[in-house]
Amino acid sequence: MKMNLSGSLLKSYSKLTMKKYRLLERKFLVEGMLLVEEALRSDWETEAVIINSNGFIREVGRLKGWEAGDGVPVYECPESDFKKLSDTVASQGIVAVMKMKEFSLSGLWSRLPDRSIFVALDEIADPGNAGTILRTCDWFGVEGVMVSSDSVDIFNSKVLRATMGAVFHLPILTDLDLGSVVPECKSRRFKVITTILGAGERLGRFKFPDRSMIVFGNEARGVSENIRSVSDHSVTIPRYGKAESLNVGVSCGIILNAAKSPAG
Amino acid sequence: MKMNLSGSLLKSYSKLTMKKYRLLERKFLVEGMLLVEEALRSDWETEAVIINSNGFIREVGRLKGWEAGDGVPVYECPESDFKKLSDTVASQGIVAVMKMKEFSLSGLWSRLPDRSIFVALDEIADPGNAGTILRTCDWFGVEGVMVSSDSVDIFNSKVLRATMGAVFHLPILTDLDLGSVVPECKSRRFKVITTILGAGERLGRFKFPDRSMIVFGNEARGVSENIRSVSDHSVTIPRYGKAESLNVGVSCGIILNAAKSPAG
Repeated sequence: MKMNLSGSLLKSYSKLTMKKYRLLERKFLVEGMLLVEEALRSDWETEAVIINSNGFIREVGRLKGWEAGDGVPVYECPESDFKKLSDTVASQGIVAVMKMKEFSLSGLWSRLPDRSIFVALDEIADPGNAGTILRTCDWFGVEGVMVSSDSVDIFNSKVLRATMGAVFHLPILTDLDLGSVVPECKSRRFKVITTILGAGERLGRFKFPDRSMIVFGNEARGVSENIRSVSDHSVTIPRYGKAESLNVGVSCGIILNAAKSPAG
Repeated sequence: MKMNLSGSLLKSYSKLTMKKYRLLERKFLVEGMLLVEEALRSDWETEAVIINSNGFIREVGRLKGWEAGDGVPVYECPESDFKKLSDTVASQGIVAVMKMKEFSLSGLWSRLPDRSIFVALDEIADPGNAGTILRTCDWFGVEGVMVSSDSVDIFNSKVLRATMGAVFHLPILTDLDLGSVVPECKSRRFKVITTILGAGERLGRFKFPDRSMIVFGNEARGVSENIRSVSDHSVTIPRYGKAESLNVGVSCGIILNAAKSPAG
């Protein structure tokens, strides 16, 4: 049964388009069928689903994973209201309100296999890059993702769209001071690995340690100095052509593939 | 010496923001310091440079590569005119008008090393993905790039921005019917390689042929059936997690790294 979305709920949910309120409320919005389905099928808590009464999707019962979402209130609202929740031009007319799942470093230790990979985002600025990195981490099944507080907010709609739902499959720690996380990881036998242009150990010959924390840095400046100074290894992807650099999401894919599927 | 941009030149150059006129005139626009510098330093012909008279860049003489651009006319125009050439919100206020360099398949054959990689874009729709693929091809120094006519136009400003200048370093053939290019490549001992999810030969064990034409397909549908049916190998990037797929630019990076830096 669909209910009308009240003005006060609309007001409170539309605030979630802003980072400040997402952090305060520990909630965020996901938009579009694919992401809402991934949300419903995940073990993250869906607070509500909202559909545009003039939109593309009329029956939430047909969504994959809807059974799992049973009990989730479904609201509808006119297009003019829906626009306050949506940032997509050609919207499918469906949004879910999600509660953030909280992960802690101490929670990660308890279930860590001997061979583990953490990926850290050190001031990744572009939403598409951040989302692509998370999607790639999901493909390669990394054990944890750490996002620095000066990276783009991963609950930003552009990031979420680029993750293709990966955000619901990964233990992601956000808003971190990486400089203080690194020593704790090192005390758990993690080696810190950064990627650099040109002068590092050659990927393909480099043997990844059993526990690797791989750091990807800012698109323009690379990994920040305070992390670089405590890194155990710098790895370089061999270059054969003229480009000055690789996109950071592409680098992440190449590095994770090498770490998970070593040569041979 | 800077000249004022006449109304008729403004009109003719602003049409280059549209694909139709780019194809007709065989010219395109590149925006921003990085791309203009890459353009000037390349062996592509720069027809003109235009700066915003209220913009960030006041002296073209300080651009890297400007010596090479000597003789190129420099125009300036007021911001209201400049906006007709620009699609960037925070523009640096510099645009170059470039002549397309024309590459042909027959031209490629004459200088092809024994070991060669071609990359083909088969209906790549997203400008960011197309640009990232070209940038990645540039990093790995592939011998040629083939773009199907139903892919996004690579002279679109969003694609160019994502290439980071790679477009000026690569022999790129555009507007192709890949179905008719494939037989010609095969007659030159190229093997056609597609990437598929799950059921292909495992990357890492797969030995790339000396001459590989690697095809990357549409973001939603993958490689088109008419290319898949004539491919010699299907390769799969091993998956360890839950993501349903990888971003196509990321896949391209992983595959090219494996093709250029085989294990060991």
